[in-house]
Amino acid sequence: ELIVTAVYYEGSGRFTVGRGEIRRPEEGEVRLDVAYCGLCGTDLHIAHGSMDQRIRAPQVIGHEMSGTVAEVGTGVTGLAPGDKVVVRPLDSRGETAADKGISHICRNLKFLGIDTPGAFQSSWTVPAFTIHRLPPGIDLKLAALTEPLAVACHDVRRGRVAAGETVVVIGGGPIGVMISLVARSRGARVIVSEVNASRLAFVRQLGLTAVDPAESDLAQAVEDATDGAGADVVFEVSGSAAGAMAMTGLAGLRSRIVVVAIFAAPPAINLFDVFWKELEVLGTRVYEPDDYETAIDLLVSGRLPLADLITSVEPLEQLPAALEQLERNPSAMKILVDCRA
Amino acid sequence: ELIVTAVYYEGSGRFTVGRGEIRRPEEGEVRLDVAYCGLCGTDLHIAHGSMDQRIRAPQVIGHEMSGTVAEVGTGVTGLAPGDKVVVRPLDSRGETAADKGISHICRNLKFLGIDTPGAFQSSWTVPAFTIHRLPPGIDLKLAALTEPLAVACHDVRRGRVAAGETVVVIGGGPIGVMISLVARSRGARVIVSEVNASRLAFVRQLGLTAVDPAESDLAQAVEDATDGAGADVVFEVSGSAAGAMAMTGLAGLRSRIVVVAIFAAPPAINLFDVFWKELEVLGTRVYEPDDYETAIDLLVSGRLPLADLITSVEPLEQLPAALEQLERNPSAMKILVDCRA
Repeated sequence: ELIVTAVYYEGSGRFTVGRGEIRRPEEGEVRLDVAYCGLCGTDLHIAHGSMDQRIRAPQVIGHEMSGTVAEVGTGVTGLAPGDKVVVRPLDSRGETAADKGISHICRNLKFLGIDTPGAFQSSWTVPAFTIHRLPPGIDLKLAALTEPLAVACHDVRRGRVAAGETVVVIGGGPIGVMISLVARSRGARVIVSEVNASRLAFVRQLGLTAVDPAESDLAQAVEDATDGAGADVVFEVSGSAAGAMAMTGLAGLRSRIVVVAIFAAPPAINLFDVFWKELEVLGTRVYEPDDYETAIDLLVSGRLPLADLITSVEPLEQLPAALEQLERNPSAMKILVDCRA
Repeated sequence: ELIVTAVYYEGSGRFTVGRGEIRRPEEGEVRLDVAYCGLCGTDLHIAHGSMDQRIRAPQVIGHEMSGTVAEVGTGVTGLAPGDKVVVRPLDSRGETAADKGISHICRNLKFLGIDTPGAFQSSWTVPAFTIHRLPPGIDLKLAALTEPLAVACHDVRRGRVAAGETVVVIGGGPIGVMISLVARSRGARVIVSEVNASRLAFVRQLGLTAVDPAESDLAQAVEDATDGAGADVVFEVSGSAAGAMAMTGLAGLRSRIVVVAIFAAPPAINLFDVFWKELEVLGTRVYEPDDYETAIDLLVSGRLPLADLITSVEPLEQLPAALEQLERNPSAMKILVDCRA
């Protein structure tokens, strides 16, 4: 019972499976029994060895989890063993005055599952302030989508998407799809731009309008849909040079462009469009506590077809194979890992 | 008395001086005696032949003017001969629903002095709705700075500059200097980045802090000035690839970047910074009526050392030579043309 099964990232793209003693919660901490943990693009990035400088191997990664409270440390209130929970994997305790109170992206932010141990293990001990409680009836598989859904909620909030607006989402991967679903639930009309055929098919199965910009004229489709006004909000989720170049052209006067993707290299941006149409280009990163609450409310409401996004559930020991599967299969949205002991 | 002296742009970078009959105001129009009209970067652009496709030569250009009402057409109220005035050179009558009520940059906007005749003439007839009245005591040379000052007021308003904030202005030309002065008058601390030695000297004479990024570390200067927080607002006024690349690095968390310059070619932008710090990149173009009123109030207040920006006043017939002078002399800020008959 006091044994944890964990997958350790060893550096250089290698993983090992290990068993060890659980870590008991100290003051202000909570030990969780992890139920499910989703695979994220960041985990793929780590598995490529691209983040070896940041990660102190051997280390457990993973941050898109759901679970139940196993044990509560001293000084922790409002949580009891058996409570279903998710973790908002941000530790802002290093915040300084230079961060201007913007805690969720403070300069010394520690990201749980990257900078500190993560959730690809059967037992996980975390600071109590990272925990959000779930209603008892929730499906813990669906609840493992809270973290990426909170990203989408944060992005849509940053973009101030309102009912009746036209939204273009460039990139139909998991985050692009979640942004599309959240924006649609706000009453917006959504057009997804995606070049991969299987992703296009998946997006259309969700009832979303999708355009392959290599096959048809995306700009014209947006013009037609808006009587020439252009999109009210454009989300750049593809991380591609083509997406970065296209995004300003799709926007209408004073429209918002939300930069969701991580661009390793600076792309060319049409600043003439930004000037000419007085555009607003907004960066967006992770989430704030409210976004977690919004995501949980959306999950509980059952209004979004989120179960369709769960491609498969794999055993913890198969994490490396699951990462490869995610990499090879563009139609894979969310692969969950079953971390239950 | 019914004769106008005008400088006509003939296309291909050539100008001629001509005399002809004045144009009497029709219904809703006002005829002005032009006093002074400043030279703008756009006028230089026209003189290079770069806008020959847009301008129907022969045509009078010029749009940074001051003058007095000479004659009022039928249906015009609130204006009388002798009133000192400036013109906001925007005709938004072609506005459509697709412009979402954003009149000042509507798709069919006509810019007076580019798309219709301008102010480099002794008599100018314009729609009454373009006119802002000035107080009787105002110096009409200073009043000719209203248009570029309204640009600066619009830019500072778009950037939501507040007292106590740190503002970086990249580019110390006329608009950069005016933005700096307006931001300082709002209580902001301003750091100007400029590479040209004579412009640097001029900016420092105005009591502004200026850094040559080729000589010293601008990013470090901003860090030092803000205790590591970074700039609250960055104005990109240089139109240079170096400025576009630097602007995101100087900004703090959730800071605003205002794109003032016109970039003919799309520059590389560090979208990783935009994402990481949740930056807000704002396009800004021309002005709204309120910006004109704010600019006039600032002019009248005498709080800004705007007279120092007037480099020289040249006779109307010397317009081509004055344009060459502006081109050759980087320390030239505003050259005014005396258009009085």
